Amino acid sequence: MSEHIHRRQRAAGLWDEVPVLAYKQDGAAPFRDVTRQVLFEHAALGCQLRYFEVAPGGHSTLERHEHVHAVMVLKGRGRALVGGQVFAVELHDLVEVPALAWHQFRADTDEPLGFLCMVNAVRDRPQLPDAESMGELCADPAVAAFIRT
Amino acid sequence: MSEHIHRRQRAAGLWDEVPVLAYKQDGAAPFRDVTRQVLFEHAALGCQLRYFEVAPGGHSTLERHEHVHAVMVLKGRGRALVGGQVFAVELHDLVEVPALAWHQFRADTDEPLGFLCMVNAVRDRPQLPDAESMGELCADPAVAAFIRT
Repeated sequence: MSEHIHRRQRAAGLWDEVPVLAYKQDGAAPFRDVTRQVLFEHAALGCQLRYFEVAPGGHSTLERHEHVHAVMVLKGRGRALVGGQVFAVELHDLVEVPALAWHQFRADTDEPLGFLCMVNAVRDRPQLPDAESMGELCADPAVAAFIRT
Repeated sequence: MSEHIHRRQRAAGLWDEVPVLAYKQDGAAPFRDVTRQVLFEHAALGCQLRYFEVAPGGHSTLERHEHVHAVMVLKGRGRALVGGQVFAVELHDLVEVPALAWHQFRADTDEPLGFLCMVNAVRDRPQLPDAESMGELCADPAVAAFIRT
């Protein structure tokens, strides 16, 4: 059988033939304890499906971009910031990140947070918040507490 | 909060705001005990993410098409036929269905089989096997046994 047709999950959050990658280039943006795996990318598909795993207490980069994220939690639990709203996320919850919405994912301190993310294969680069954007975000105490956790 | 940003899994394989749909138009193609849910579709995304659930003993349609399927098992277990190969699938296994590969998913008799399927938003219609294609498929005893299960 072509190994490409069927790839088994060999352990929780690890698959045959799927390398575990650095989340981002070191130093390119602030994040903590995140891995990235590309589960599906194909010249004939308009999107990629990636799996990110944030270790307990870790977080993804606070960023925004024109492209949309379609997210499903696959493991553990945590909290998300999307467009100024903070909410808890649990197994199989769905999160849609609209264009140019500031967003960040944080694992709980005692659980990892693993999630699928479907994204256009061709997409713009993420933007990081400048001082003015951080000021606007942190005007909401709930958002400020989330970012500073 | 916009309900569109965060939709919770309210029970296994059921989500807020996600209707459970018929798999196909009744009588359009042979299948048994399958439901369909569209988890993500967005004008800005090149793909949709759907969730299909096959009840114990049920099966999807045996079909092929030009568009590619990117599948992840989300619940239960079963078996798949892809391009003449039959194999067992379990939680979080990845299955890629190439262009024009005959394929079918079957749940085990004692377990449902739920799976995510990423697919281009714009895609061709499935083709059903004619007598000649069925003859070619069933030349392999393993495939014949799978189809006739």
